[in-house]
Amino acid sequence: MAQLRTALAQVNPTLGDLDGNAGLIVEWTRAAADAGAHVTVFSEMTLTGYPVEDLALRPTFVDACRHAVDRLAGRLAEAGCGDVLTYVGYLDADEAGPRNSVAALYRGEVVARQAKHHLPNYGVFDERRHFRPGETLDVLRLHGVDIGVVVCEDLWQDGGPVSALARSGVDLIVAPNASPYERSKDDIRLPVVAERAREAGVPVAYCNQVGGQDDLVFDGDSFVVDRSGALLARAPQFVEHLLVTDLEPASTEPVTGAAAGTFSGLEVRRTVLSDEAVPGYEPLRAPEIREPLSDEAEVWSALVLGLRDYVHKNGFRSVIFGFSGGIDSSVTAALAADALGPDAVHGVSMPSQYSSEHSRTDAAELARRLGCHFRTEPVGELVAGYVGKLGLTGLAEENVQARVRGVLLMALSNAEGHLVLAPGNKTEIAVGYSTLYGDSVGAFAPIKDVFKTQVWNLARWRNTEADKRGETPPIPEGSITKEPSAELRPGQVDTDSLPDYAVLDDILDDYVEGDRGFAELLAAGFDPATIDRVVRMVDTAEYKRRQYPPGTKITFKAFGRDRRLPITNAWREVH
Amino acid sequence: MAQLRTALAQVNPTLGDLDGNAGLIVEWTRAAADAGAHVTVFSEMTLTGYPVEDLALRPTFVDACRHAVDRLAGRLAEAGCGDVLTYVGYLDADEAGPRNSVAALYRGEVVARQAKHHLPNYGVFDERRHFRPGETLDVLRLHGVDIGVVVCEDLWQDGGPVSALARSGVDLIVAPNASPYERSKDDIRLPVVAERAREAGVPVAYCNQVGGQDDLVFDGDSFVVDRSGALLARAPQFVEHLLVTDLEPASTEPVTGAAAGTFSGLEVRRTVLSDEAVPGYEPLRAPEIREPLSDEAEVWSALVLGLRDYVHKNGFRSVIFGFSGGIDSSVTAALAADALGPDAVHGVSMPSQYSSEHSRTDAAELARRLGCHFRTEPVGELVAGYVGKLGLTGLAEENVQARVRGVLLMALSNAEGHLVLAPGNKTEIAVGYSTLYGDSVGAFAPIKDVFKTQVWNLARWRNTEADKRGETPPIPEGSITKEPSAELRPGQVDTDSLPDYAVLDDILDDYVEGDRGFAELLAAGFDPATIDRVVRMVDTAEYKRRQYPPGTKITFKAFGRDRRLPITNAWREVH
Repeated sequence: MAQLRTALAQVNPTLGDLDGNAGLIVEWTRAAADAGAHVTVFSEMTLTGYPVEDLALRPTFVDACRHAVDRLAGRLAEAGCGDVLTYVGYLDADEAGPRNSVAALYRGEVVARQAKHHLPNYGVFDERRHFRPGETLDVLRLHGVDIGVVVCEDLWQDGGPVSALARSGVDLIVAPNASPYERSKDDIRLPVVAERAREAGVPVAYCNQVGGQDDLVFDGDSFVVDRSGALLARAPQFVEHLLVTDLEPASTEPVTGAAAGTFSGLEVRRTVLSDEAVPGYEPLRAPEIREPLSDEAEVWSALVLGLRDYVHKNGFRSVIFGFSGGIDSSVTAALAADALGPDAVHGVSMPSQYSSEHSRTDAAELARRLGCHFRTEPVGELVAGYVGKLGLTGLAEENVQARVRGVLLMALSNAEGHLVLAPGNKTEIAVGYSTLYGDSVGAFAPIKDVFKTQVWNLARWRNTEADKRGETPPIPEGSITKEPSAELRPGQVDTDSLPDYAVLDDILDDYVEGDRGFAELLAAGFDPATIDRVVRMVDTAEYKRRQYPPGTKITFKAFGRDRRLPITNAWREVH
Repeated sequence: MAQLRTALAQVNPTLGDLDGNAGLIVEWTRAAADAGAHVTVFSEMTLTGYPVEDLALRPTFVDACRHAVDRLAGRLAEAGCGDVLTYVGYLDADEAGPRNSVAALYRGEVVARQAKHHLPNYGVFDERRHFRPGETLDVLRLHGVDIGVVVCEDLWQDGGPVSALARSGVDLIVAPNASPYERSKDDIRLPVVAERAREAGVPVAYCNQVGGQDDLVFDGDSFVVDRSGALLARAPQFVEHLLVTDLEPASTEPVTGAAAGTFSGLEVRRTVLSDEAVPGYEPLRAPEIREPLSDEAEVWSALVLGLRDYVHKNGFRSVIFGFSGGIDSSVTAALAADALGPDAVHGVSMPSQYSSEHSRTDAAELARRLGCHFRTEPVGELVAGYVGKLGLTGLAEENVQARVRGVLLMALSNAEGHLVLAPGNKTEIAVGYSTLYGDSVGAFAPIKDVFKTQVWNLARWRNTEADKRGETPPIPEGSITKEPSAELRPGQVDTDSLPDYAVLDDILDDYVEGDRGFAELLAAGFDPATIDRVVRMVDTAEYKRRQYPPGTKITFKAFGRDRRLPITNAWREVH
C-alpha cells in the first residue's frame, strides 16, 4: 500500500476574475502544501468560475484563460508548492472549439490537460452549447500512485470515463465538480460516487465548488470515499474548506503497453511524474467527517450564501428594500442581516392609507431586533397624485401603490448606492401575484425559489435557532402569525385572490416541480376548480416571471433558469 | 419524367394552439387540393408552433401533440383532401424522449413519422436540451415518385441525411423548416439548398415558417430548386402563402433490396403509397418567383410582423407608449401603426420641466400624421413629489422622471388594457443607457435589436416609401434631424454620456456582433479611450439588458436570446 495525502480545496471563485482566482488557487495550494498534501484538487473551472455561459464563445476570454493556466503553473512553483500535483479546472479551447478542461500542474508546468467528456445540457446546464466533449483521459503516476481524473458529469455515466480508467488501471480517481445546490442533493451525490468507487475498485476524491453565481449556489460538500464506497472524509457545506485526507491506494503493477490505449472510445495517456513511494508517515489521527446540515439549516445557508455572493461579487456592500411587516420581507431581512451584517441592511417602511397599524409596528420591531437601518416614507400623497391625475380605480389604483414604492426604493438606491432586494416568494411568482415594476423591483430576489409555506417554516426555524443560542429571535411573531395581505385595498387578504397557501403550494409543487398534468392533479385529490384556477394562473404568468429578478435556486425547477417556457404560448393544461 | 404538383404551405401557426393550428393546416391543405397539388409541405413543427422550448419536456403537452397529429390525419380526409400527401411538423416522443418530428398524412392515416437528425444547439437554438435525434429516413412513393424528407438543420449537414437519401435513391426531397429571420439570411439559404439539390441530383422543396414568436420572427421565403439547383419558385417574405410548383422528377428504378437499409448510420424505410403516375397534365404557365425585399423593406417588414404577432398572439389589440418627439418613439409609432393600424396606437406625451417645445410639437405632429390616439400628461408635479420628499439630485432625480413616466404608462395600461411598448434601441441597450423601470417599462420592445444609426435609416426609408406612394411621411422631419437627447436635465444631449452614434455603433457591431477583442478594435482604427469606455459600458450592463423586454431579433447576436452572459462577471475585456 502506497501512502498519499490528498487535499480537496473547496474554494469560492469569482466568475471571470482570472487574476483573483489564480491568487486563490496559489493561496490554498500553499495551505495544502503546508498540511503535507501531495495532491490538491480544485473544483471544476475554478480558475474561470462556473458557469461561464457565452463567455466560452469569446475568443479573447478563452485566450486569457489559456494563458492564465500556464502562468499559474509558474506561480505555484514560485510559491514553493510546485511539488504538489495540483488539479485546476479552467476553460480551454483547440481547433474543435472550447473545452471544459482540467489542467494538472506540477513543478512549474502543465503536465496534463483533459477535457470533460459528458456535457450536461438539461436543467441549469447548457454545456453542449459551450463546449466540445473530450476524447482523452490522463493518468499521472505520482509517488507510484496512478491518478486518473474525471470532471463532474463524467462521474454519473454508467460505463463512462470511470469505467475506462478502471479497465486501463488506476489507483485513485480525483473528480473536480461544479454541482449546484438543490435541496437534499447531498443525499444523491454520495451514493452515486460511492457506487463508482466500488465499480472501479479505487478511492474517489470529489471536490465541489462553493459560493454563489447569479441564481446558482454551490454548496461545497466535498468528500472522499474509499474503494469500498465508504466515506473517509467530508467537508462542511457552504463555506470554503481544505479537506485533507490520507489515502493508501492499492498500487497497480507497473504500466504495460496495454494500460495505455483506447478504452470505451477514450484514449488513455499515461505520464510518470515519480515512481518512488512517499516515505512512510503517520496518517492524520481523526479523519474529518462533517455531518450534513438539517433541511432548514441547509436551505437557510444556501440562501444566505447566494445573497451575500450576489451582492458582494457585483460590487455592492449594502441592500435596501421595503419592510412591510409581512413574512416575506421579514425573512428577507433576516437573511440579509445574516449574509451582510445588520449595518448593511436598510429597511424602508412605506405605508399607504391601507397599511394596518400592526404592519407598521411589526416592520419597526423587525428593524429593532435586527439592529439594521430603518426609515419610514409614507406613500399616500405620491399615490394620490397619480390616482387623481388619471382617475384610477381598482387594480390600476392598487398597482400604483406598489409602483410608487418601487420608484422610492430605486431613488434611494440611486442616491445612496444600495442594491435593491425584491422580497417575493416562489408561490406568488408562480401565479403572477405581484406588481410588475412594483414589488418585483430589485436586482436580486433572495426567496424567489422558496414557496410561501416554506417561508413560514424558515421564519420559525430561524427564530428557534436564535432561541437556542440565547439570542433575540429576529422575526416578530406577529409577522409569522398574521393573515397574509398585500394591503393595497381595505380589508384585502391574499385568499381573496388565491387558494389557501397550503393547498396552493401542494398544487404548485406537483404542477411545477413534478410536471404533473390535470388528470394526475385530479387523481391526487385536488378540487378540479382549484386546479383549473391555479394552472391557468401559472400558465399565463410567464412574462412576469421572466421580468422578476434572479434569486438563489434551491429546487430542481427554479423559475428562470430551469423552466424555460415561451411567453407567447396558447397551450393550456386545462381544456 | 413523372409529373407532380407540390404546394408549400407557408403559414403562421400560434405556439401551443393545437386546435387552431390543426384548423390552419386543414384550411391550407384544402386550398392546395383545390390548386391540384399532390403533395403539401408545412413548416417544421407547424402543428405545435416553434420553438416550444421546455414545453417539450411536459408529458401532457407531448401527449396532446401526438393525439393532435393522429386526429389531423382524419380531419384532412374528412375535408376531402386525404389524397394529398401532407407533411406536417409536430412534437413527437418515444421511450428515448421528445422528438422534433414530421408526420406524413395520407388518406386518413399517419403513413410515416420521421425525427430530425441534426439538432442545432447554438445561437437561438436549444434543441439538444429538448429533443433526441432521429435515426431513420422515410421515403414515400407517391404516383411513382420517391419522396424523401429532411427537417431544417438536416439540410445543412455535409454528408448528412440528404446524402443518405441520395445514395438510397429518391426523386424529390421536401424540407420543412423553422428558420428564424436574420438580415440577409435569404442570401444564405438558397445557395445552401441549391448545393444540396445538386449533390443529391433531385429537386428540393423548402418550406419555412412565417410569423412572430416572442423575440423570433420567421420570414417564410419558401422556395423550390430543381436538380441543378436552379430556382423554380419562391414565395414572398413575411406573409402566409401557398407556393404551388409543377415538378417533373426523374423516376428512379423500382425499389430494390439495396435501396432500403442503412446509409450513413440512418435507416432508410420505404413505403409505396401509389405506383401509377399522375395522368399527364398541363403545368402552371408562369412559375411564381418573388424577388427578395430590399434590406430596409425586409427589416421593416420583420419588425412589423414581430410586433403584430407578439401583440395579437398574446391577446392584446392595442398598444400604448410615450411619444417623446425623439426618433426612437417615432419609429416605434410608425411600426405600430403599420402593424396594428393607427386606431390601435395610443401615444402619450409626458413632458417634464426639461422637455423642449419642439419635442412636444413633434410628438403631436407624429400622432397627427399617423392618425393615432394621443394625449398629454405632464409629469412635473409627480416628479416634484419624489424629489422634494427625498431631496433627490443628479442621476437619482433624472431617473425619477423616467420612472414616473413608466408608472403612468402602466396605470393607463391597467386601466384601459393596452400593451405597453418600450421604444429603446439596440445601441442604448448595449451600453445600458436607459432607466430600469423607466423608459425600459413595457412588454415588448419593437426596435430592441436595431442600432441607433439604423433607426435613423429606417425612419428616412419609411418616409421615402410614403412619398413614393403619395402618402404623408409618418415621421416628422424634426424627429429625424434633431440632436438626440433624453431631456432629463437642462441642455442634456446623448453625447454627454456616449460617443458619437456613428462611432459607437461601429464599435458595438465589432464588439457584440463580431466578438472582436480590444486588440482587434484597436487595429480597426478606433481610439483606445473610446474602445475602453464602450467596452466597459457593455460589459457591466448585462443586468439591465436581461430586464429589458423582448423585441424582434434581426441580427445574429440579438441581446437576450443569442448572447447569454452571466450577470455576476468580473471579466473585463480591457485590463
